[in-house]
Amino acid sequence: MDKSFIYDRTIKFRDTDAAGVVYFANGLSICHEAYEASLAASGINLKAFFSGEAIAVPITHASIDFFKPMFCGDRIAISLISTLLSPESFQIDYQLYFDESSTEKKAIAKAITKHTCIDTSTRKRCNLSDDLLKWMEFTQ
Amino acid sequence: MDKSFIYDRTIKFRDTDAAGVVYFANGLSICHEAYEASLAASGINLKAFFSGEAIAVPITHASIDFFKPMFCGDRIAISLISTLLSPESFQIDYQLYFDESSTEKKAIAKAITKHTCIDTSTRKRCNLSDDLLKWMEFTQ
Amino acid sequence: MDKSFIYDRTIKFRDTDAAGVVYFANGLSICHEAYEASLAASGINLKAFFSGEAIAVPITHASIDFFKPMFCGDRIAISLISTLLSPESFQIDYQLYFDESSTEKKAIAKAITKHTCIDTSTRKRCNLSDDLLKWMEFTQ
Amino acid sequence: MDKSFIYDRTIKFRDTDAAGVVYFANGLSICHEAYEASLAASGINLKAFFSGEAIAVPITHASIDFFKPMFCGDRIAISLISTLLSPESFQIDYQLYFDESSTEKKAIAKAITKHTCIDTSTRKRCNLSDDLLKWMEFTQ
Repeated sequence: MDKSFIYDRTIKFRDTDAAGVVYFANGLSICHEAYEASLAASGINLKAFFSGEAIAVPITHASIDFFKPMFCGDRIAISLISTLLSPESFQIDYQLYFDESSTEKKAIAKAITKHTCIDTSTRKRCNLSDDLLKWMEFTQ
Repeated sequence: MDKSFIYDRTIKFRDTDAAGVVYFANGLSICHEAYEASLAASGINLKAFFSGEAIAVPITHASIDFFKPMFCGDRIAISLISTLLSPESFQIDYQLYFDESSTEKKAIAKAITKHTCIDTSTRKRCNLSDDLLKWMEFTQ
Repeated sequence: MDKSFIYDRTIKFRDTDAAGVVYFANGLSICHEAYEASLAASGINLKAFFSGEAIAVPITHASIDFFKPMFCGDRIAISLISTLLSPESFQIDYQLYFDESSTEKKAIAKAITKHTCIDTSTRKRCNLSDDLLKWMEFTQ
Repeated sequence: MDKSFIYDRTIKFRDTDAAGVVYFANGLSICHEAYEASLAASGINLKAFFSGEAIAVPITHASIDFFKPMFCGDRIAISLISTLLSPESFQIDYQLYFDESSTEKKAIAKAITKHTCIDTSTRKRCNLSDDLLKWMEFTQ
C-alpha cells in the first residue's frame, strides 16, 4: 500500500443494503471511483474520457473478493495498480483497507477490472491512447 | 452559499445514465451524501446513526429541480441548511453549484428532503435526539 | 387505480439500504421504470428513445412522498397518469400500492416527474414528438 | 439454457451509464435479481430471508465477463445454476442471453457469485438451511 495510487472514501448510506453492509456490486462501483480519481490525478479530463469522444474503454471482466463487511460511515482506502495486458488492453488490481486509524491492517476486499480500448468510429480494438499510457506510468 | 455547510463532490461515472448526464434520482443521492457529511462533521457516528440503534430518521418527502445537466467529472459544491418543522421532524434545503473555477454562478439544482424521527422500539414518532439538535445548530 | 397504466414490481435487495427498507431515491427509480414500461407498451422503441437520437426528454423536477416503508420482496403496483403542461413539457403522477393480496389499500407512496422535450441538435426546447403524443393518449 | 432457472429482464435506463450501455457493476445487480427470483420461486420468503433473521448469506466472491454491450430496452434472459461448495457455502453460475427473438444466440455475459451461510447470533459459519437446500435442488 506504499507507492500505488490511493483513494480515500467514506462508505455512504446509498452503498448499503438491508443486510446493513455494502451491497456487493457497490464494492466494484467504489473501485471504479478510485480508477476515475487516478485518471483525473494523471491529468485526464474525465468528461471527455467517459463520453467516449475518440476511444471507449469498456470493462470486459470484473471480480471482487470480500474478507470483511463494510458499514455506513466506515472510512476506507483503496490502492490501485495497473498492468498492461496487450497493446489494446489493461488490468487494474484494487486492494481495500480500513483507514490508518483502524487496528485492522489486512485487506478487507480485493478486486480486479480488465479494460479494452475501442475506436468509437470503427467499433474495433485499438491501442491505448497516449493519455492512458501516461496514466499507466502513474499507476504502475 | 457562505455560512451553510458545504460538501464538495465530483460527479462519478456511476452517477450518469445513457443520456450522458446525472440520472435524476442520483441527484438526490448526492444530496443525501452531503447530509451524511454534515452529520459526521457535527460529531455524529454514522454507523450507529444509520443502523437505527435507538431512533430511525426516515425520509418522508424528497424533491429536486434541475436547471443544468451535470456530466461525469464535473466538480460541484452542495450547500445545505436545516429547518425544524416540529419537535419530531425537520427539513433540509440543498443548493448545488459548479465549483469556484466555473463561470456558472447560479444554482444548477435545488432539492429538499423532510425527515421524521421514529423510536425504533415503539415505531412511533419521537423528538429529535440531542445529537440531531446539535447538528441542526451546526447546519442552520 | 382503474384505468391508468399499471406496472407490477417486486422490491429488490439492491433497492434497499441499511435501514432495511427502500432507499428513498430508489423510490423514484422504481417510478421511472414504470414510465419506461408505459413507453414500451405504447409502441416506443426504448433503445432509440433513451439514446436521444432526435429528441431528449430530461427530467426537470421530481418529488416523492412516502407513507409506508417498502421491504425486499414486497410486491407493489405503480399506476401512472400523464398530463400535458405545455407543447414542450409534460408531468407524470405515480401512485404506489401494495399488490392486490395485501390488506393495505391506501397508496404507500406518491411521486411526480416533470419532463421537457429538447431538440438534441439545437439543444432548444421543442414540441412533443408524435410518439410521445400517442403515449400520452395511452396514459391519460 | 434448457433446464435451469430462467429470469427475464428488460434493461432499465437506471442500469446504464454515460457510455450508453449497462454500467458494469449493474451487470452483477441484474444477476442478483435472478437469484432473488429463484429464491422466491422455490418458496422462500424474501423479506425474512434478506432481513437476516436467522442466517445471513453474504457474497464472498463475484465475477463477471462481458461479451456484448447491453442497451436500455434490451430484453435479456438470465439462466442460473447453483452448486454446493461445502456444507456452509455455494456458488451460482449465471449466463445472460438476448431473448428468443434475437439472432444473437451466444451468451452476452457470464457471471459467478459465491455465498457463505452465517449464523446471525454467533457470527460464525453454519450449514445451509433446509430452505436453501430445497432451493438448490430447484436450481441445480
